[in-house]
Amino acid sequence: MVVAVLGCGYWGPNLIRNFLQCPEIEAVIACDPDEHRLDLVRRRFRWVRTTPRTSAVLNDPAVEAIAIATPVALHYELASAALRRGKHVLVEKPLARCTAEASHLLALAEANGRILMVDHTFLFTDAVQKLKELVISGEVGEPLYFDSVRANLGLFQPDVNVIWDLAAHDAAILLYLIEEPPAAVSAVGVRHYYDLENLAYVTIHYDTTFLAHFHVNWLSPVKLRTICLGGSRRMVIYDDMETSEKLRIYDRGVDISSKEGEEQLRVQYRAGQMYAPPLPNQEALTRVVHHFVTCIRTGQRPISDGFFGRAVVALLEAAQRSLANGGQRIPVAAEYVTCPTTPLLEL
Amino acid sequence: MVVAVLGCGYWGPNLIRNFLQCPEIEAVIACDPDEHRLDLVRRRFRWVRTTPRTSAVLNDPAVEAIAIATPVALHYELASAALRRGKHVLVEKPLARCTAEASHLLALAEANGRILMVDHTFLFTDAVQKLKELVISGEVGEPLYFDSVRANLGLFQPDVNVIWDLAAHDAAILLYLIEEPPAAVSAVGVRHYYDLENLAYVTIHYDTTFLAHFHVNWLSPVKLRTICLGGSRRMVIYDDMETSEKLRIYDRGVDISSKEGEEQLRVQYRAGQMYAPPLPNQEALTRVVHHFVTCIRTGQRPISDGFFGRAVVALLEAAQRSLANGGQRIPVAAEYVTCPTTPLLEL
Amino acid sequence: MVVAVLGCGYWGPNLIRNFLQCPEIEAVIACDPDEHRLDLVRRRFRWVRTTPRTSAVLNDPAVEAIAIATPVALHYELASAALRRGKHVLVEKPLARCTAEASHLLALAEANGRILMVDHTFLFTDAVQKLKELVISGEVGEPLYFDSVRANLGLFQPDVNVIWDLAAHDAAILLYLIEEPPAAVSAVGVRHYYDLENLAYVTIHYDTTFLAHFHVNWLSPVKLRTICLGGSRRMVIYDDMETSEKLRIYDRGVDISSKEGEEQLRVQYRAGQMYAPPLPNQEALTRVVHHFVTCIRTGQRPISDGFFGRAVVALLEAAQRSLANGGQRIPVAAEYVTCPTTPLLEL
Amino acid sequence: MVVAVLGCGYWGPNLIRNFLQCPEIEAVIACDPDEHRLDLVRRRFRWVRTTPRTSAVLNDPAVEAIAIATPVALHYELASAALRRGKHVLVEKPLARCTAEASHLLALAEANGRILMVDHTFLFTDAVQKLKELVISGEVGEPLYFDSVRANLGLFQPDVNVIWDLAAHDAAILLYLIEEPPAAVSAVGVRHYYDLENLAYVTIHYDTTFLAHFHVNWLSPVKLRTICLGGSRRMVIYDDMETSEKLRIYDRGVDISSKEGEEQLRVQYRAGQMYAPPLPNQEALTRVVHHFVTCIRTGQRPISDGFFGRAVVALLEAAQRSLANGGQRIPVAAEYVTCPTTPLLEL
Repeated sequence: MVVAVLGCGYWGPNLIRNFLQCPEIEAVIACDPDEHRLDLVRRRFRWVRTTPRTSAVLNDPAVEAIAIATPVALHYELASAALRRGKHVLVEKPLARCTAEASHLLALAEANGRILMVDHTFLFTDAVQKLKELVISGEVGEPLYFDSVRANLGLFQPDVNVIWDLAAHDAAILLYLIEEPPAAVSAVGVRHYYDLENLAYVTIHYDTTFLAHFHVNWLSPVKLRTICLGGSRRMVIYDDMETSEKLRIYDRGVDISSKEGEEQLRVQYRAGQMYAPPLPNQEALTRVVHHFVTCIRTGQRPISDGFFGRAVVALLEAAQRSLANGGQRIPVAAEYVTCPTTPLLEL
Repeated sequence: MVVAVLGCGYWGPNLIRNFLQCPEIEAVIACDPDEHRLDLVRRRFRWVRTTPRTSAVLNDPAVEAIAIATPVALHYELASAALRRGKHVLVEKPLARCTAEASHLLALAEANGRILMVDHTFLFTDAVQKLKELVISGEVGEPLYFDSVRANLGLFQPDVNVIWDLAAHDAAILLYLIEEPPAAVSAVGVRHYYDLENLAYVTIHYDTTFLAHFHVNWLSPVKLRTICLGGSRRMVIYDDMETSEKLRIYDRGVDISSKEGEEQLRVQYRAGQMYAPPLPNQEALTRVVHHFVTCIRTGQRPISDGFFGRAVVALLEAAQRSLANGGQRIPVAAEYVTCPTTPLLEL
Repeated sequence: MVVAVLGCGYWGPNLIRNFLQCPEIEAVIACDPDEHRLDLVRRRFRWVRTTPRTSAVLNDPAVEAIAIATPVALHYELASAALRRGKHVLVEKPLARCTAEASHLLALAEANGRILMVDHTFLFTDAVQKLKELVISGEVGEPLYFDSVRANLGLFQPDVNVIWDLAAHDAAILLYLIEEPPAAVSAVGVRHYYDLENLAYVTIHYDTTFLAHFHVNWLSPVKLRTICLGGSRRMVIYDDMETSEKLRIYDRGVDISSKEGEEQLRVQYRAGQMYAPPLPNQEALTRVVHHFVTCIRTGQRPISDGFFGRAVVALLEAAQRSLANGGQRIPVAAEYVTCPTTPLLEL
Repeated sequence: MVVAVLGCGYWGPNLIRNFLQCPEIEAVIACDPDEHRLDLVRRRFRWVRTTPRTSAVLNDPAVEAIAIATPVALHYELASAALRRGKHVLVEKPLARCTAEASHLLALAEANGRILMVDHTFLFTDAVQKLKELVISGEVGEPLYFDSVRANLGLFQPDVNVIWDLAAHDAAILLYLIEEPPAAVSAVGVRHYYDLENLAYVTIHYDTTFLAHFHVNWLSPVKLRTICLGGSRRMVIYDDMETSEKLRIYDRGVDISSKEGEEQLRVQYRAGQMYAPPLPNQEALTRVVHHFVTCIRTGQRPISDGFFGRAVVALLEAAQRSLANGGQRIPVAAEYVTCPTTPLLEL
């Protein structure tokens, strides 16, 4: 299989490296209008071919698959062009600028019988796969809340705010773990420096008592990457800054009974063991690339397919609208955020 | 000076202990309708007098000051009775159930020329005093945001939700540090077990680009007590779970310039030194008691006086109203949240 | 039962408090030549009796048991006097200044049929009890090494060096966990300020491949209290500075085979789960007092009896001798460090 | 300048990568008898030349400098051959198997007027450079002790024990920071699996009250990389596992006066601020390579020259001898451990 990577900025070379290591890939073509970037790619990778012209790649019948790692604004145009020419497509997150674009891409992929996959890399980490397993197996019990903090100093993005940059990860992880579709989104944020939010709080509302909340922040003195998933049987903390023991599973919780007329609640706190499962520690992007290739070969649906990618975009879009409306609760259409059941990855 | 402590549940004995150690206090009277609690008090403290009858205390002309450590529902009634009888009053946080009650108590204190102080203990910690000093001195620069997390497993309260229980601390610290009055409050929460929220997110909006946000949670597997104050010159993290170095001050931030038509922002990240100042480590409640007695003796205004206590109640009340209105942004009246400038404590 | 506490400095009041809470104890008598200390005791505890005269206590036939919390130099004289008068005796660690004294006390206790127990408080903690259980049950596998670090800033002691002060804890924990008797001790240390070592490294040698090592330090910028017990099946880290999860049990290790002539070892690293068991969190000294009283009542042998206390002294004495001999390996007599099998405490 | 790298196992490719990025280097030749390794090198680096024959490299007059990254057993033979042929030599740590070999290499380098440098990479880290600066500037005050812990699970080495593997780092850092020459070394260790020690404690004795101690361990459940340097004015903790704030400088210490006949010491504990300086975070090996090339060009003496490398070997050799003699204190010859004053690197 021949694959082309469009965009050789920050993420593109990582895709190239992983495609080069993938046995099913016969050749990798790197494409970027910036010759300087192509030069860097050539210096770093021996067997990659390069071209500055996108059209050359899109029109090359030998190219079976295309990976798009350009700025978000170009995702729609490039992905639709590639799908129309019968290429399989892997797009960086987020899939598109809005649900309309995402829906169109999704329809194109269906119509052309081609794989459309979004590179929500975090889904492919050991930690998120284990979290998913804990939810599916019932070990977590009934999910009660999802709280994430994704903060550090920078990188301020010139074209998207902190929600489109960082909350895209949390939205994907949330949608992967919790199959119940979100009902609405509210968000508040603040722009300290220019006209894009650099700090924001996003709440994802459900029709149940489940609640999700993301704190995303480009202006934090320390780097934080924490997700807490609270469940009725177990609570799990995923701290991505830990070098080992990224996942800690707590057998803690409460049992509460309160009777009419009693002032005192009858509360039992359960404080059992904590454990940290061993995680295999494979690079997530290697799995992304492998999953993409496998889906192309077998016709299997990617865990982060177009529907999934659109659901993420739907949440971000709603958050953006809420920001613009003083934090108002913005409903999300069930059709946009209901994904086909996403399974565990076969590792 | 003779002081009476009303309510000998969880916090009352701490007040008794500190009053007993205060040289200006000649006698401490403990009052609680529950004889069992009085018995525990007598076993623990040798020189305390006890009585089950509140009226005995209120009508005793020798009692100059009263500390109220009862459930919140009784604060208003007891504090107003005490003030009417010419007693100085120290009330546990929050001052009252609503701003109307708080306003009334405040007026009573003014009319009777008596001290009304709220025991917002956190204001009296080394860490918050140091934070205040960093703000006043300009070391922090322009305050940009306040983010707090106050989470642990329990204690579920039977009479108030997690906002009135935990966010009362954050509201007090915020109001003490930031003199700009808040403009509005929004809040979302969830009730997993009974009809009071056990997890909530509260946002405090300002007319400037400053933003404050509290995450309060009774259902967390681990205990977290963290406040991050971001400023244009310094960012400070106050982690109350640290045994030493509770306060870390980071010389970190960004300088951003962006020109029309440029895709790239010109961003300079500043990553200078972090330092942890030594903190004297005196018990905060000892300072509360000392400050109360000093204010009585000198007529000085407490840093957490009735106005301050009402401002905290105003924020909690607005958060409560927002909860009941789907997270809507609830304005707070400037008159309620504008406090007289609160100085540093003289340590 | 009437108990007297001799010595009301730092630790004495803790003993008094725990004896007062013990249902089997009818009265507690505090004894200290320093009237100021007695005054503090009287202010703090309502029902304690006090006397400045040791002889009054020793000669009082109503006093059945004596707890000795004086400087180490007085342990021998007071304990032997008490045992001769038929009292049961609880002595602070270390039992005595040398094995000769310890042997004499031990013989006196046997001859008089009285309980002699040493307050090695750490043995009574949740963490050490759990460690012991992990060793006994075989979960740890064959013990391979014991490494401890006990460091902080101060308290410099005027009468004993850092080994007699801090390594006494590690020696007790080691002897409790590992039944194999130590063979020899070596130690190096340094005196930065006056003629007692403030930093020392102690190695406990065995006839097997097991090795134990203590780092004890009064001159550390941070407080450290860590023990690592490496075993063939599990490795355990006990970090006493953690507020929760003091004990972490790692399913980690190696399996190694090497064949003659092969340059490469065949090494398999096992990196399984880590877990932190829940610990009940009872005050250890409460258990010390309860165990002492139970042993008196039932005639049961204390887990830290005279033999055990002497074994600790034997290790410290050998360490001291090694210090004085340039770090030479000093054998310890098997008879001194072989203790009767010490069981788990019945909690 | 043309440089050849002998040995393409674990470390060799890192040297190749850094030489390739060095502007002064015109060509890099990789040499390893193992064709498989050469193949990996060719796949990874585009512009490297490869050869399996050492003699080809040694006899190539175009090759000006040689870096040796083979097993320790080959260092002497290869380095002496290279020096004899007038090449400049960079050798992996440790320089040689014994001081005799090291002395010979050193003499050869002097006789041929060639640079002999040892790749003690840690000296070139931000953290160690900053530590050195703190010592030189007097900020640390009089150095009091050096305590290091270097522990993790594996990698068990087939040819050298844990001291030659891990303590080589600590010895180099110690010798770089403390100019006072060590007087003696003692060491204890244990072999749990095969005939090389996997856990060891090494003490470096001085004629002053300064003391250094290393704990090196291949059998630890967690990875630890900590050095504490205690000084009379400041104490510094270097924790290499921290992602930021690797260096923490504590303004803590004690002032002690004790008078004859007084039981109480007069001790003042100083607990001032802690601060973490910003560190530039350049790859240390890049600096190693740059320093090597600069020394070749300018004739400047490397900070880790042959004398320095021999001093490290002298400490390891003494430690080894102590291991074989039951932990006896082995004197080290002053001539071997007295290095020319090692300056700060010019960064």
